[in-house]
Amino acid sequence: MRLAQALFAPRAVALIGASGDARKNTARPQRYLRKHGYTGRIVPINATRDEVLGERAYRSVADAPFDIDHAFIMVEEVEQALEDCGRKRVPVASIYSNGFADAGPAGVDRQRRLVSKAKSLGVRLLGPNSMGVVDLPGRVALTVNAVLEMDAPPAGGTSLISQSGTMLGTLLSRGAARGLGYAKLVSIGNEADLSVGELVELLVDDADTKVIALFLETVRDAERLARAARKAHAARKPIVAYKLGRSALGEELARTHTGALAGTDVVAVVTTTGGGAASVVDRLGLLGLELASMHDLTMTSTQDTYRTTLETLLASAECDAVLAAVGSSAQFHPEFAVEPIVQAKRAPKPLAAFLTPHAERSLALLAERGIPAFRTPEACADAFAAFFAWRSPRAEFGARTTIIFGPSPEFPASLGIPVAQHAIVQAPLFEHSLLYPVALKRLDLEHKTEAGGVALNIGSHAELVQAAERMAQPRLLVQTMEFGLTEAIVGYRDDPVVGPLVLVGAGGTLAELYKDFAVALAPVSEAEAAELVGKVKGLAVIRGYRNLPRGDVAALARTVSALSRLALIEGRPVREAEINPLIVKAEGVVAVDARLVLKG
Amino acid sequence: MRLAQALFAPRAVALIGASGDARKNTARPQRYLRKHGYTGRIVPINATRDEVLGERAYRSVADAPFDIDHAFIMVEEVEQALEDCGRKRVPVASIYSNGFADAGPAGVDRQRRLVSKAKSLGVRLLGPNSMGVVDLPGRVALTVNAVLEMDAPPAGGTSLISQSGTMLGTLLSRGAARGLGYAKLVSIGNEADLSVGELVELLVDDADTKVIALFLETVRDAERLARAARKAHAARKPIVAYKLGRSALGEELARTHTGALAGTDVVAVVTTTGGGAASVVDRLGLLGLELASMHDLTMTSTQDTYRTTLETLLASAECDAVLAAVGSSAQFHPEFAVEPIVQAKRAPKPLAAFLTPHAERSLALLAERGIPAFRTPEACADAFAAFFAWRSPRAEFGARTTIIFGPSPEFPASLGIPVAQHAIVQAPLFEHSLLYPVALKRLDLEHKTEAGGVALNIGSHAELVQAAERMAQPRLLVQTMEFGLTEAIVGYRDDPVVGPLVLVGAGGTLAELYKDFAVALAPVSEAEAAELVGKVKGLAVIRGYRNLPRGDVAALARTVSALSRLALIEGRPVREAEINPLIVKAEGVVAVDARLVLKG
Repeated sequence: MRLAQALFAPRAVALIGASGDARKNTARPQRYLRKHGYTGRIVPINATRDEVLGERAYRSVADAPFDIDHAFIMVEEVEQALEDCGRKRVPVASIYSNGFADAGPAGVDRQRRLVSKAKSLGVRLLGPNSMGVVDLPGRVALTVNAVLEMDAPPAGGTSLISQSGTMLGTLLSRGAARGLGYAKLVSIGNEADLSVGELVELLVDDADTKVIALFLETVRDAERLARAARKAHAARKPIVAYKLGRSALGEELARTHTGALAGTDVVAVVTTTGGGAASVVDRLGLLGLELASMHDLTMTSTQDTYRTTLETLLASAECDAVLAAVGSSAQFHPEFAVEPIVQAKRAPKPLAAFLTPHAERSLALLAERGIPAFRTPEACADAFAAFFAWRSPRAEFGARTTIIFGPSPEFPASLGIPVAQHAIVQAPLFEHSLLYPVALKRLDLEHKTEAGGVALNIGSHAELVQAAERMAQPRLLVQTMEFGLTEAIVGYRDDPVVGPLVLVGAGGTLAELYKDFAVALAPVSEAEAAELVGKVKGLAVIRGYRNLPRGDVAALARTVSALSRLALIEGRPVREAEINPLIVKAEGVVAVDARLVLKG
Repeated sequence: MRLAQALFAPRAVALIGASGDARKNTARPQRYLRKHGYTGRIVPINATRDEVLGERAYRSVADAPFDIDHAFIMVEEVEQALEDCGRKRVPVASIYSNGFADAGPAGVDRQRRLVSKAKSLGVRLLGPNSMGVVDLPGRVALTVNAVLEMDAPPAGGTSLISQSGTMLGTLLSRGAARGLGYAKLVSIGNEADLSVGELVELLVDDADTKVIALFLETVRDAERLARAARKAHAARKPIVAYKLGRSALGEELARTHTGALAGTDVVAVVTTTGGGAASVVDRLGLLGLELASMHDLTMTSTQDTYRTTLETLLASAECDAVLAAVGSSAQFHPEFAVEPIVQAKRAPKPLAAFLTPHAERSLALLAERGIPAFRTPEACADAFAAFFAWRSPRAEFGARTTIIFGPSPEFPASLGIPVAQHAIVQAPLFEHSLLYPVALKRLDLEHKTEAGGVALNIGSHAELVQAAERMAQPRLLVQTMEFGLTEAIVGYRDDPVVGPLVLVGAGGTLAELYKDFAVALAPVSEAEAAELVGKVKGLAVIRGYRNLPRGDVAALARTVSALSRLALIEGRPVREAEINPLIVKAEGVVAVDARLVLKG
């Protein structure tokens, strides 16, 4: 029989380890198969009972007196159960049991042995650590996922393969709430045998499947998946993948040598769903927030453990905020999901909740108790980022000063900013008393460099005269050449919406190419200016980066603060001002070019 | 009487222009005041009727035989109504009527005259173009916003000031759905007199208000708002502001001279809510998508106009996708909001909907009809960005090649990549036959530059011997000095998760400081490599940026493609390879340093 049929449309299913206690997880597959109208044969396998929840039960798969298409293994002795399946010629086994690659190096070895045994027995494996498969149009609910408590999940043309069992429930419940139905849903677990790629190939051939959705924590066989994706594309079936770990991949590819930024805000996470929590943590990473610690309470959690873990983190100095992520229990048992969060002893530290399934009642309960609760990882992470972006209000600057300033090249000097020595030279002699080397600049152009209006590094008067004659201007500006460790741009702008702003950026083309600048409301103190300078990435080269010589960051900050004080001039006559470049040296800074635009 | 009391807790309200037709917008304030239990006196003012919806009506405010605390003006003759209020000593008037600063230069003049008239009459103004005010704990629903059709909006500690009337309804309805209640809600309209800042000050003094929420499209009086924010901070009342226009501000501050990127994907928007649509457009801008056109159908829209506008855009070549944004009608009239979207003749172009209020039924209806529908601007914009980020699958590379390569410095040459001329020199003579100037490098260090393992620009053999002796190594590498227009980094990595990758980035410290690199699955063709090179911002300096000389981008792309072919070697023995720097010249490129790491 074909693999797809055994997996998704088995004529008989063996439930190995089926419990007679309807409240247990291991009773769920039987309950869900019945509840959602499975038309095949259900065969409970139980070591001690002849009847389980009203069905005839057997001690072993081997004892069942008819063919089994699909076994669902929920016992600890997975190896024994698998051997029974092999002898019975069961073509596929889904394994809910865990303790394999999900459980450290010993588990990895156990999994390797399991796979080789399955191969020799001719049994294909889904899992281990899989929550099973669902085929909604086919009425097969072979799963332990509590989302199947739902009465009538809508069928539709999307099929899902999920590496997180919880996220399978989440996507099914949220889809149902939004009118989006599913065809097949597969919890792929550890992917020991059946891989995402192979399952995509099966779904490409599945008539009910129009769209293939993937929830991925990693990619275990990129080549097979790529091949399957090409096959899906050729069949005009779109694949929509949600892949965790974007922030980690970005970091690794950048191979940054700078280490974590000092003072990054850190968030601790308590969760009952690894995949759900990871989706928020991933986004936090993209926003520059770091994970302090992750407490995954899946399986073992009780209300008390959850609450005390939260309380410990809220009281601890090791994190700046706490996120409580809740999986499937949030949907059908809001009391259970919400109570420990609501009851936890609060601290001034922010606490927020993220609920993965469709769980409007739990969201409302939490909000009513003053705990921000989110339904998307994006909104949740954005809220943390916004919280940490908050700064206390700036003090009002009282006295306004009056500053007198002359025409463009001199105005920085009137603010106390050092300016390169300069003089105006006139044709035909172009005499001056500055030391060489010098720079020669036209006085009448805004974008001098592009227009050939600048000559740098002129070493002698003869060269100067040559360059000046090329520019063919009666009056020119000559400046002492200045050399430093880097260039910066310092700007001021009276914005019609937000008021006066000061800007500092990396010099040359960097501020523009990379938008590498930092902005604040003007005026700023020297301390505030220093903080601003610290935000400019390109200025890392003068902050002691990779043993490069340090520049005079304090003098740069003084300059930023000085320019920002244009905001204090009575009547605020200045619309824009810019020093570009400002040369930063090991000691001191010097303005080499400046521009000033008055209002009106 | 105090302004706050007249505004939020009036003892008597005049509804100027109240309609006797309960279906009309102008009948809403009277209906809502009654519905939500207003305990003061309701005074309809109607030019032709003595009774309106069961209340005694008057021809003019002046005719009402008792004091009026607050007038709500809904007539076109706003000036006349305001004069009546002045004569009657009404302290505050909210103006729903529009045609002022919202309606072009003539409207701006009209608004200026209105404000000066109000000043001389001693009447404070809310609006014009305001949807009114709501005080939930005080049971005052003085508004035309349809969200008040809701039976029992929950009261709470958050007060809202919104520049968009629609967003007031949106935030109230979504809050109600999530258990988040409000105290006061103000639709501030054109802010002709009462400003956001002044209202924040009133809310700071309001005992019911614990948190102040702002929905802002612009800031009209930054100084007053800043002062009010300081006052709120001192009173420990947080302000949470959602400000539109971040992308536009970012763009303007960057003052980019490069213009819009060629080939940017553009989205057209049809909307019944300016503020709601703007929140998506803002986010689209942050994601690099541009607005093709905005069709704001507020007030004048009919189902037919909405549908035909959608159809025109779906058929037009001027946009790549269409967004349908729907305001308050989505909540109580899903048929109205959904029908034109569902009925519109489809095109291959993507169509998505964004619903601003809490409107689960409409969301589900749209999803069932195959139209993606979103409830947050972030998710909606993310989906458009993901759609446009899609690329068709790469063809599979068939034949695998075998490439033989030697030790590190030579390996680029074996891939056909030009390498700087070099030789190994030995102590004590350090002889070689290269032309000066040369560079001298240690052979045994990874991060040579930081460790003093590199000497550049050596002009003579005497200098070479000096430098070599300082390095105190028996064998050293000597290379011809290479000069070019810029440096690039070209890398290869066989990633355990996604497989072989090729990377190209800006050289020097730029790739690291700015994460300025582009990555693709390896191998890539020269055309694909050229596309990749085009994504690196810092390489703009050799693409004809600001009249700078152009570099040999084609040779750089050839190098990227050549290095990526490491993925085709049988058995994929290479784990990592890097050429850093690769010097890009006006003609050709040359590798100056390279590194190769084999697996295992």
